Amino acid sequence: MNQQYPSALLEKAVGEFAKLPGIGKKTAMRLVLHLLRQEQSTVEAFGNAIMTLKKEVKYCKVCHNISDTEVCQICSNPQRDASVICVVENIRDVMAVEGTQQFRGLYHVLGGVISPMDGVGPSDLQIESLVKRVEEGEVSEVILALSSTMEGDTTNFYIFRKLAKSNVKLSVIARGISIGDELEYTDEVTLGRSIANRTIFTGTV
Amino acid sequence: MNQQYPSALLEKAVGEFAKLPGIGKKTAMRLVLHLLRQEQSTVEAFGNAIMTLKKEVKYCKVCHNISDTEVCQICSNPQRDASVICVVENIRDVMAVEGTQQFRGLYHVLGGVISPMDGVGPSDLQIESLVKRVEEGEVSEVILALSSTMEGDTTNFYIFRKLAKSNVKLSVIARGISIGDELEYTDEVTLGRSIANRTIFTGTV
Ligand SMILES: [Zn+2]
Ligand SMILES: [Zn+2]
Repeated sequence: MNQQYPSALLEKAVGEFAKLPGIGKKTAMRLVLHLLRQEQSTVEAFGNAIMTLKKEVKYCKVCHNISDTEVCQICSNPQRDASVICVVENIRDVMAVEGTQQFRGLYHVLGGVISPMDGVGPSDLQIESLVKRVEEGEVSEVILALSSTMEGDTTNFYIFRKLAKSNVKLSVIARGISIGDELEYTDEVTLGRSIANRTIFTGTV
Repeated sequence: MNQQYPSALLEKAVGEFAKLPGIGKKTAMRLVLHLLRQEQSTVEAFGNAIMTLKKEVKYCKVCHNISDTEVCQICSNPQRDASVICVVENIRDVMAVEGTQQFRGLYHVLGGVISPMDGVGPSDLQIESLVKRVEEGEVSEVILALSSTMEGDTTNFYIFRKLAKSNVKLSVIARGISIGDELEYTDEVTLGRSIANRTIFTGTV
């Protein structure tokens, strides 16, 4: 459809929404018109929530998970087992593993996986700080909980080599999840079982 | 999944996005994390665009279409044929009909259709102002371009009775669009043809 916007302000707002991943112009228009029908205060709450998050967001200086404090609630919880670190790609994965209620250790958020195709190398990820945590800390086990993809496997192997000199036990979550599946789309039961059945990482999957 | 948000600010932002129609918690999370990865200025442009629109939006006092000015660009365009008014449900429908480039008259945006189920009665819509436009103006034809649904038919009939005393020619767009289809999802060719083949409205479809 030849979109001739009746208002430049409308066009601008629709354009901003349409920049979001998976949101086309039609959907953007629906969302904007929905917001237009709401109270002024509702729209301000919406706009402010995202701007405040962006301005005030912090990342835990230990595990790099998103946090409202310098050290996140998980890292600073004395009830958690600081000797086990579960390595994940992103914040959503932390939430996915937490959702299983099967894991009582700490996390390490890499911020992605090694992907030469996307220009993501080891130095773009929080790998050095993981090595440092293992070297300095009381860590006895590192669980690799990356997606079951080629990039995930590459990253597993890179970390395996980086931690080879340490005495830490390195495990990968059991491949109950299908090859090619992304971790965050795995149901809780499967994911919980994968963690329970984790195996020692030997460099190959 | 049992969502345990690592940050209250994150939870708030995700919650705001998830209030939008068709956006679930998972999608909301993806959108928020996408925005978090953008520059501060990008996120501010996003938040400001929607808040500015809400604050500064106007509706044309003639046709009730969204507008940056008191009277919209279509109503104030001397090239348009002011003797023909196309009645539509909403702003998206104006854009849909404009997209066909088949119509050179003016519009009248009702703001919906009569729907007792949804508690929408005639007084909730811009019907009185349509009657006034017809009574006061140089209008020779009113084209009803509402969705081909029971609610659209009901509204057509209501307007038909309201305009019965006037001498205006009342037509409905040709039902090239399938019964039950919403106008805005109709392709341009079909919609353009429906307008070209409009017929005199006789009170029944
Ligand atoms: Zn932490
Ligand atoms: Zn107008």
